[in-house]
Amino acid sequence: MPQLALNRLRERGSTERAALDALLDDVLAGTLSTVVDGKPWVVPMLFARQGDRILLHGSTGAGALRHVAAGAPAALAVIAVDALVVGHTTFDSSANYRSAVVHGTLTPLPDRERAEALDALSERILPGRNAEVRPMTRQEQAKTLVMAMPIVDGEFLVKTRSGTASPPDEHTDAWHGVVELRTVALDPAPAPTSTAEEVPRSVLDFAGARVLA
Amino acid sequence: MPQLALNRLRERGSTERAALDALLDDVLAGTLSTVVDGKPWVVPMLFARQGDRILLHGSTGAGALRHVAAGAPAALAVIAVDALVVGHTTFDSSANYRSAVVHGTLTPLPDRERAEALDALSERILPGRNAEVRPMTRQEQAKTLVMAMPIVDGEFLVKTRSGTASPPDEHTDAWHGVVELRTVALDPAPAPTSTAEEVPRSVLDFAGARVLA
Repeated sequence: MPQLALNRLRERGSTERAALDALLDDVLAGTLSTVVDGKPWVVPMLFARQGDRILLHGSTGAGALRHVAAGAPAALAVIAVDALVVGHTTFDSSANYRSAVVHGTLTPLPDRERAEALDALSERILPGRNAEVRPMTRQEQAKTLVMAMPIVDGEFLVKTRSGTASPPDEHTDAWHGVVELRTVALDPAPAPTSTAEEVPRSVLDFAGARVLA
Repeated sequence: MPQLALNRLRERGSTERAALDALLDDVLAGTLSTVVDGKPWVVPMLFARQGDRILLHGSTGAGALRHVAAGAPAALAVIAVDALVVGHTTFDSSANYRSAVVHGTLTPLPDRERAEALDALSERILPGRNAEVRPMTRQEQAKTLVMAMPIVDGEFLVKTRSGTASPPDEHTDAWHGVVELRTVALDPAPAPTSTAEEVPRSVLDFAGARVLA
């Protein structure tokens, strides 16, 4: 099933910024990689694109995150699997996907920019929620390290596959085609301690939209 | 929204092998990271767990993949976002997730093991498909580099969050709870060149099952 080897499909490569932005805005989580003592150090993270940069955050106490924040080379990778591509053989089987790797270095945001960046992270994940709840306190903000990685042309790679299975190059009766995948949100479930009578607008909107995670 | 910083939640850490296996068997794609010229090199990939090892494959011509295959330290990372956790504040908001990072080195499989490994990769992604189509030819096998990374105790980390939003530590009327996410498969769509009258069992079973991708 060599066509599943996503990395070798150069003809699918694209460096289009629009495709990158669309993917980063669709996917909730990615993996942040850097190098510690010559070895790969990797952590799954939620993130948010804000214009020409990617926002990440972590505890001010996290050692390895500080290492990344201090300017070590880093890469954020995301992937969305959109469909199984079922070929007439397993060799011709594949997946439809969108993936991106963004290289760069992370810069910790100064205190004065932290509140706005945290709001942007929240807004990306659950649009409208900031306006429904009290602002974060200074103490809450102080517990968080917020970092930004610039999106620079030439420093990212987007790869995708779309469409159906390739036409067979041999006689075959084998079925071939695609099975698309969708991520959907279920109905909101209040916590036992929630006394609100109505589900807030932000949550209703999120649950009602098709979600690509 | 600091609780979104998945990496700092040490209390959620778990090294349980069973949790790792369950996650690796649920998720179709991950990111493989290694180090090239002191910088992180990352590629999104499909993979398959086979017992105590992870199988990966790529083109025999892919340079960086060869670098990894030659014994450089590597890490496979996967993440599944299971729910948004909507707190009474954005600070208390989070996500339910399952993530894993497996460290190790990749070994290219010798020719005699390649066919079986490729069948295992196919079987993991679309169970039952191998039995429905012709076997891969020797030429097809020869085009593919298949690598294995052993799963070793102490060399992987699983982190998860589950459950609903934390009880507020202040008076609030703000709704809090969770919105679960599910990945589902749509109906199989044949390619225009497919002349088969029936959708095969493997595809029906895949499309009928709830899928966690």
